[in-house]
Amino acid sequence: MKILDGKLLSQKIFDEISTKVEKSTMRGERAPRLDLILVGDDFGSIKYVKMKEKTARELGITCQTHHLQEDISTKEVVNLVKALNEFQHTDAFMVQLPLPDHIDSNLVLESIDPKKDVDGLTSVNLGRLFLNDPRAIPPATPLGILRLLEEYNIEVSGKRVVILGSSNIVGIPLSALLLRRDATVTICNSKTPNIKEISKQAEILVSATGIPLFVDSSFLTHEVVLIDVGSNRHPKTGKVVGDVDIEEVSGIPSYITPVPGGVGPMTVACLMENVVSIASKRLS
Amino acid sequence: MKILDGKLLSQKIFDEISTKVEKSTMRGERAPRLDLILVGDDFGSIKYVKMKEKTARELGITCQTHHLQEDISTKEVVNLVKALNEFQHTDAFMVQLPLPDHIDSNLVLESIDPKKDVDGLTSVNLGRLFLNDPRAIPPATPLGILRLLEEYNIEVSGKRVVILGSSNIVGIPLSALLLRRDATVTICNSKTPNIKEISKQAEILVSATGIPLFVDSSFLTHEVVLIDVGSNRHPKTGKVVGDVDIEEVSGIPSYITPVPGGVGPMTVACLMENVVSIASKRLS
Repeated sequence: MKILDGKLLSQKIFDEISTKVEKSTMRGERAPRLDLILVGDDFGSIKYVKMKEKTARELGITCQTHHLQEDISTKEVVNLVKALNEFQHTDAFMVQLPLPDHIDSNLVLESIDPKKDVDGLTSVNLGRLFLNDPRAIPPATPLGILRLLEEYNIEVSGKRVVILGSSNIVGIPLSALLLRRDATVTICNSKTPNIKEISKQAEILVSATGIPLFVDSSFLTHEVVLIDVGSNRHPKTGKVVGDVDIEEVSGIPSYITPVPGGVGPMTVACLMENVVSIASKRLS
Repeated sequence: MKILDGKLLSQKIFDEISTKVEKSTMRGERAPRLDLILVGDDFGSIKYVKMKEKTARELGITCQTHHLQEDISTKEVVNLVKALNEFQHTDAFMVQLPLPDHIDSNLVLESIDPKKDVDGLTSVNLGRLFLNDPRAIPPATPLGILRLLEEYNIEVSGKRVVILGSSNIVGIPLSALLLRRDATVTICNSKTPNIKEISKQAEILVSATGIPLFVDSSFLTHEVVLIDVGSNRHPKTGKVVGDVDIEEVSGIPSYITPVPGGVGPMTVACLMENVVSIASKRLS
């Protein structure tokens, strides 16, 4: 059972980004700039935003967080989005989700200029992903999964992929990336009756359910490639665990992503990669 | 084996549309208007456009065809698209596909204002379909399939659906409609190795391969709901046949769409329904 080492690959991507950014600033070009919109004081959201800020800056990417009060209106968030759409120095930006309940998230996300939509969450970007349009900006988590598979030379064309979870952030855009690489893709959701049986047919199984330790050996066939997108608190120990009970499944998959150190760091790396890729279009 | 009678249901939809259009014109409102862009002299395309024109007019929908010469440039087609985007009297319009090879179809389609995109082929509309955004305009064929299933009270939530074919016009948008109704969806393509085995797991099997008589009893389990999107020339007889060898599969499915008289007429009916639905937003 080999580890799909997201920590290692993300480091490699970070190194590439640093070099690229350094070269372009040496040429006198302005550094890429990422803006982050954070609303309210959700502990997890603050932590993620700080981590993205830190990572961006370490790579030479200018990063600016806009921390708005919890009770701000949808209109005010949309106004900030529109300002960033127009602001020339902002190459790319994202809204940290989830937004507080009283805010219309769809309206906020749909106000983002698709060209600056570094999280790939606008309908235009999702549509372009399915249409295989080269201008599509893929969301960072699905892109990170694809990069991991590529790094370990795991072919997806002609393969049976089963995705557990049909979220707009992971399941759906990942299905687009895989379908356009000629995989045969099945998307399961909480209403799927025989989910174990279907999972067992996968050559590549991706779990993005958000349920700690949901996937055990009864979901797997030998030699499956197992991708764990989960990052959940263990109900008893409080430790961060994935969707997969990694000890219980030990020895069955051919490849597995650990949690932490698998998909998580790849998401951050691919977010930064998206920033640089968007900025390079501005520069060219 | 019951017939999913698209001919009958489309007639019912046409009647509803006629009544609706008549009522709104009686109130003094302008009739809904559909514009069709046709490039070149492809026999099939001309036939389809004429049929749409005729149907629209019978329903009281104003219909205007713009027939452009085969050797027109992409830019000129895009200019017409942009003019129709702006032209207030045009509620909805579509470009008849396929366009001649020298024309950049993606560029043409992406120029369409999503609000007037009656064929639902822009990236915005496809993305909105996956995001379950109520503003999405679904392509007519997937919408027609959904309407047929609804008419015969065939539940999709929790069902296993297998779609053969991952085209932008049928397979992909249909998967969006079904996923957002909590079906478990598998999309197969020409690289799928064990396509019969996968098809056999379907409770609802949709074939959109464009290969005449591709699906026979070896793809089916008893009681499957079988949707045939194909409209192909029989290689020997020259007659129009579907993807399904309907005589060979006889008695196995619980429901089946005939060709002709199944999905075909539903596509036309749902196109017209889209026109009226778009126009009603203008009126409200």
